[in-house]
Amino acid sequence: MQILDGKATAKAIKNELKEAVDTRKRNGKKIPHLAAILVGSDGGSMTYVGAKVKACDEIGFESTLIRYDETISEQVLLDKIDALNNDNSIDGFIVQLPLPAHIDELKVTQAIDPRKDVDGFHPMNLGNMVLDLPGFLPATPAGIIELLRRYEIETEGKECVIIGRSNIVGTPLSIMLGRNKNPGNCTVTLTHSRTKNLKEVVSKADIIVAAMGRPEFVTADMVKEGAVVIDVGTTRVEDATKKKGWALKGDVKFDEVAEKCSYISPVPGGVGPMTIASLMINTLRAMELKNN
Amino acid sequence: MQILDGKATAKAIKNELKEAVDTRKRNGKKIPHLAAILVGSDGGSMTYVGAKVKACDEIGFESTLIRYDETISEQVLLDKIDALNNDNSIDGFIVQLPLPAHIDELKVTQAIDPRKDVDGFHPMNLGNMVLDLPGFLPATPAGIIELLRRYEIETEGKECVIIGRSNIVGTPLSIMLGRNKNPGNCTVTLTHSRTKNLKEVVSKADIIVAAMGRPEFVTADMVKEGAVVIDVGTTRVEDATKKKGWALKGDVKFDEVAEKCSYISPVPGGVGPMTIASLMINTLRAMELKNN
Repeated sequence: MQILDGKATAKAIKNELKEAVDTRKRNGKKIPHLAAILVGSDGGSMTYVGAKVKACDEIGFESTLIRYDETISEQVLLDKIDALNNDNSIDGFIVQLPLPAHIDELKVTQAIDPRKDVDGFHPMNLGNMVLDLPGFLPATPAGIIELLRRYEIETEGKECVIIGRSNIVGTPLSIMLGRNKNPGNCTVTLTHSRTKNLKEVVSKADIIVAAMGRPEFVTADMVKEGAVVIDVGTTRVEDATKKKGWALKGDVKFDEVAEKCSYISPVPGGVGPMTIASLMINTLRAMELKNN
Repeated sequence: MQILDGKATAKAIKNELKEAVDTRKRNGKKIPHLAAILVGSDGGSMTYVGAKVKACDEIGFESTLIRYDETISEQVLLDKIDALNNDNSIDGFIVQLPLPAHIDELKVTQAIDPRKDVDGFHPMNLGNMVLDLPGFLPATPAGIIELLRRYEIETEGKECVIIGRSNIVGTPLSIMLGRNKNPGNCTVTLTHSRTKNLKEVVSKADIIVAAMGRPEFVTADMVKEGAVVIDVGTTRVEDATKKKGWALKGDVKFDEVAEKCSYISPVPGGVGPMTIASLMINTLRAMELKNN
């Protein structure tokens, strides 16, 4: 069994991006600039946004963090998005989800100019993904694809079962892994809460992607010997032995599954860092597309 | 075994649309107007466009057929699309595919204003489909969903195997059948030319959608007893016994598969008429969204 080390892979990607930025600096060219909007002070969201800003620092991207109290109106947020869309110094920006219940997340996502939508959540970018046209791929699925690519994992003709059909992970990844590319050309089955015999379906897979947000749901008896297992879950579970009082748990029961599979991505240190790396790749591309 | 009679179902839909149009007429409201661009004189394309114009006539929609010689430049076509985008009398329009090799189909598809893209091929409409947002669903998958709906076929929790991952049928249908809707909530497996053990994969399916364009590829030994079979294939095969010299063949070996399955859509008279019905539904909606 080999660990799919997302942390190390993301570090390698960030080093490559740093070199690209350094070259641009030396040539007097614009440096990529990512803005992030954070509404409220949810612990998880603060951690994620913090990690994104930190990644910008490491690479040498400029970053701007815009924070709002959780009571702000939807209109204030939409006005800010409009301003960022029209701010030529900003190459790409994200609005950290989830948003407070009184703000319509879809409306917010759709208000972002697709050319600055480095999270890849805008319908235009998802449509481009379906058609395999240039655009911004959603960061988490793109990070998973990149992880498979860098570990040179054979995907062609493999049976891949994805658990969870979310708009930001399961559904787009099902399309990306099924299309005629490398990585890709998998025979993909997308499963969800209404799937019958889930265990049986998963146990036939050569590649398993667990992305439904149920800690340690995937157990060894669901995994075929030698399968590749990608764990997208990140749930905070109470843990009195930890100083912060909780531990991050994936959707895979790591210890027992690890013994059976050929490759496995851990939580933390697997898909999470790759998502941030994808966001950085998208930000550089956004700037390149705009400024050449 | 019951036939999924697309012809009769499409007729029922067209009657409903005709009533809606008649009501609009009585109230002095605008009548939907569909334009179709046909480049060249490919026999199949001429037949399809002709059927669409005929459907408009039957329902009482206005229609305009714009024909070009196959030697026209891409720019002439793009200029015409631009004109139609800005022509307020036209509610929706289609460019019949395939186009001659010197014209970039993707560029053409993307030039159509998404609000008039009643074929549902524009990235914005495909992205809206992925997110289950309002937009125009691609006509063939939407027609299949409507056929399943009108025959009240249970889809929730069913294993559905789609053969063929095209941008206009297999890939969008895989998303539409997998999402949390009725019809929908299937566990969908999207198969293609790189799928291994295709026969084995298909033979487990409760619902089979054959959409790869290989005449009579799906044989009885690939079909589970009682499965629902949807045939999207439409290949012209030489047939000296026919006056026109060819017969339209589906992707399913109808006679032997029909004996085994619970429902089957024939070719012709199955998915084809439903595609046209979907196009008409989209055209009415395009007008309603524009004019209320």
